[in-house]
Amino acid sequence: MGSSDRYLAVAEALKPILRETRAQPLHLVRFESDDSFLGYRTVVDKNASSLAETWFSEGESVVIDFGSHGVGYLSFALIADGYADTPARLRLVFGQVPSDIAEELYPSKSWMTKAWLPYEDHTIGEIPTVINISRRYAFRYVKIEIKEMSDEFKVGFHDLSLRRVTSAPRDVEPIPDPTVNRIDAVGLCTLRDCMQEVFEDGPRRDRGLFLGDLRLQALANYVTYQNNDLVKRCLYLFAGLRSQGRIMACVFDRPKPHPSKIYQPDYELLFPVALYEYVQHTGDVETGRDLFPVCQDMLERNYASFFQDGLFTKTDLWYFFDWDQGLKRTACMQAGYIFAYKVAEKLAKLIQASVDYKATIDTLSTAVLSYYDTEQGVFVCEGQVSWVTQAWMGLAQVLTPAEHVRAIQCAMHDPTAMKPMCPYGMHYVLEALHVNGATEECLRVGKAYYGGMVERGADTFWEVYDERDAKLSPYHDHHINSYCHGFACTMSWFIRQ
Amino acid sequence: MGSSDRYLAVAEALKPILRETRAQPLHLVRFESDDSFLGYRTVVDKNASSLAETWFSEGESVVIDFGSHGVGYLSFALIADGYADTPARLRLVFGQVPSDIAEELYPSKSWMTKAWLPYEDHTIGEIPTVINISRRYAFRYVKIEIKEMSDEFKVGFHDLSLRRVTSAPRDVEPIPDPTVNRIDAVGLCTLRDCMQEVFEDGPRRDRGLFLGDLRLQALANYVTYQNNDLVKRCLYLFAGLRSQGRIMACVFDRPKPHPSKIYQPDYELLFPVALYEYVQHTGDVETGRDLFPVCQDMLERNYASFFQDGLFTKTDLWYFFDWDQGLKRTACMQAGYIFAYKVAEKLAKLIQASVDYKATIDTLSTAVLSYYDTEQGVFVCEGQVSWVTQAWMGLAQVLTPAEHVRAIQCAMHDPTAMKPMCPYGMHYVLEALHVNGATEECLRVGKAYYGGMVERGADTFWEVYDERDAKLSPYHDHHINSYCHGFACTMSWFIRQ
Repeated sequence: MGSSDRYLAVAEALKPILRETRAQPLHLVRFESDDSFLGYRTVVDKNASSLAETWFSEGESVVIDFGSHGVGYLSFALIADGYADTPARLRLVFGQVPSDIAEELYPSKSWMTKAWLPYEDHTIGEIPTVINISRRYAFRYVKIEIKEMSDEFKVGFHDLSLRRVTSAPRDVEPIPDPTVNRIDAVGLCTLRDCMQEVFEDGPRRDRGLFLGDLRLQALANYVTYQNNDLVKRCLYLFAGLRSQGRIMACVFDRPKPHPSKIYQPDYELLFPVALYEYVQHTGDVETGRDLFPVCQDMLERNYASFFQDGLFTKTDLWYFFDWDQGLKRTACMQAGYIFAYKVAEKLAKLIQASVDYKATIDTLSTAVLSYYDTEQGVFVCEGQVSWVTQAWMGLAQVLTPAEHVRAIQCAMHDPTAMKPMCPYGMHYVLEALHVNGATEECLRVGKAYYGGMVERGADTFWEVYDERDAKLSPYHDHHINSYCHGFACTMSWFIRQ
Repeated sequence: MGSSDRYLAVAEALKPILRETRAQPLHLVRFESDDSFLGYRTVVDKNASSLAETWFSEGESVVIDFGSHGVGYLSFALIADGYADTPARLRLVFGQVPSDIAEELYPSKSWMTKAWLPYEDHTIGEIPTVINISRRYAFRYVKIEIKEMSDEFKVGFHDLSLRRVTSAPRDVEPIPDPTVNRIDAVGLCTLRDCMQEVFEDGPRRDRGLFLGDLRLQALANYVTYQNNDLVKRCLYLFAGLRSQGRIMACVFDRPKPHPSKIYQPDYELLFPVALYEYVQHTGDVETGRDLFPVCQDMLERNYASFFQDGLFTKTDLWYFFDWDQGLKRTACMQAGYIFAYKVAEKLAKLIQASVDYKATIDTLSTAVLSYYDTEQGVFVCEGQVSWVTQAWMGLAQVLTPAEHVRAIQCAMHDPTAMKPMCPYGMHYVLEALHVNGATEECLRVGKAYYGGMVERGADTFWEVYDERDAKLSPYHDHHINSYCHGFACTMSWFIRQ
């Protein structure tokens, strides 16, 4: 058995049995346009129990609100008032936010396939029948439209419920602090719904396991659900699914383990970070030892091929760092490698392995200062000042903690500086404040950011968040955005540490 | 237990176990417009076995030809070339004739619900998977369109097959006569596919059991499949599901036995006819005795309420006789009651019951002559000469056989006379020729009519047939027409007697 097969066998043995709970709908609602951030006000029409007493004709529809976000399988009994003398065509639309339900889904400008638009159509030949939706959906609201059937009968929906699934092993006690308990609860819900057979980046779309999300989800997991075996399983999946030696940014476990085609060097360097934190939180030194060669190989291989004279020069790859396509990223990469090398050193110490990365770290750390504008006290990448660049420099800790905090604050006070477009970018701003001792500032900024999302209607934290534009979408259609996204769950980690 | 409940219990006990066979696809085809009756030429692209070696991308489609009509449940394995990284949306269109597949189904001008348009959409969340279409379809062709999915993978269809169902207990030997064996085979296929848990009028739409179709299907059944218990079951369903005393034109057995709202006096009077023929062919006198009171009640009740001075005067009801809405029908009704009374007399004799319908028959038979134009030798109803009126008069046998044959032929030679628009109307023209001794003329006309349908592309006989207009539809959309229709199967009865 090669090492990849062995790694995959370890991952397979750790596949969780999902915990199932039955969620009941709360209200029948409708959405009215207003000037709120998400653009709609939710009007409660009735208690959901009245659904069992309501009949629907062709052309009618109902929006059912479960009251909170969930991931799982919808089912209901479709019954007829009178005898159903024709088939019925239904459309089910699954909404994480009101716009999914309230807006027309077509035409869509997305460059992604429209197969992601969150609906499905059914032609029901015989009524009564039980409808078990076999596709797993992530949603709070479901709209059922009766598109076509005869006017000789009406239909009703009985026993409509959601079989929710998660690998979060238990509920977590809420925290009492009223200034953050709602943010924490939304983060917990986000994390729970992403925890499936892997830590999914977001349960709405492709069930991908992304390394960038994994590291952040794992952090939040250590202080909440503590399904640490799921972290271990995911680390082994990444190790087992390397492609041409590279740790891929995204891998899949279904239908059988396989790598995606997505490679991102900024995600790859998080592998030693996630492994170190796993060992640190679990004491599972054995896993640290088993996977440390993967870290070494990655760091040394990339250092040899991506760097010249200590500077990161590889620019023909796709890196993430943030959804904003305008972000200049080479400085972030430089900082990221310093961060990763330093963490790898700590990991080696923890598992009593012998490595000597000091010279490399020194070379990288000297070179990185070419990005530093001593006059302004910020890092500048290709003429651009961004929050995210300051953040990654803060993690690399190439200046004093105070200087890093000042660099971050300087960018935050600069209206021309590029802000993060999504919580992933924002997390590293907060983490950099945190590790450089500005824990209060970290919480203040985090509360404003994540609290802003909550105030703007988030039941789970979003993949994309720009407080000026609710319809911002890297996919060119916000109906395809993920509104429950793994990398957005980390406020609970900052709050609960 | 009231008599209705007892009748329904008898019907329930006779519910057949359907015979299942597995049908395999024959070809992958496409349709090209041409000037043939149905408007399309079928071009065979490949043997169906090549389906297992073909991959499809978003926007592509395939038309699979099973080579003959069938009723049942389609299934296939949906597999991916590469890993399916998004859901796939498929549309399946089920065609009895090429136009179902080759033409856009929307917009539809039908006054019936568009839920009858023969397609369904699926959103498949995970691939590979097995797709079992739960709705029963009646079709020869199925088109699968890949409407939406990513371009990272292709899909394929393996093990595609149709689980055909019928209550026809066995296959029937073909007949050797080359002038009629194809017509007979198409009729057998039509009958087989309508034989399900009841004799359905047509398996494409609502699984209705229509009395007008039942009588004709039963006739064909006696000389072919001989599932006589299915006839008995259907008679008991009609008896058990009377509504306000009336035998309804259509009843349903699913989801549980219930009458439709459709009442047609011309169908109702066929109940004693169908019962008589059942007893005649089976010798099951007991059933004849059990259900004879239903016949008596129907005849006497209707005679009291529909007739004045021996003439049928009830015109505010829906009668069928033919799909042509312009047909004048009171003469047909008058003739129909004479026919029904005469058959009821024969039935009474067979079961040794005592009735005296002579006076009624005489009154009706005298009155009916007011429709007869002695000069022309045809029956005229409200100024209209139609084939169908001559036909029902021929069944009533109120003139000599030769005079009835002459009346029918006179109408057939009159270009202004109204022709039947569907095989139901045509059947009675043929039956009237047959019972009045013109058996050769019956076969000649029948061969021309049903042979014409076969030449024009019928795999099963159609609900609607006008050789001048393939798109004629009582529903205002031929995509909703039934192309396998129970009342169209009777040529096998004429041929095989």
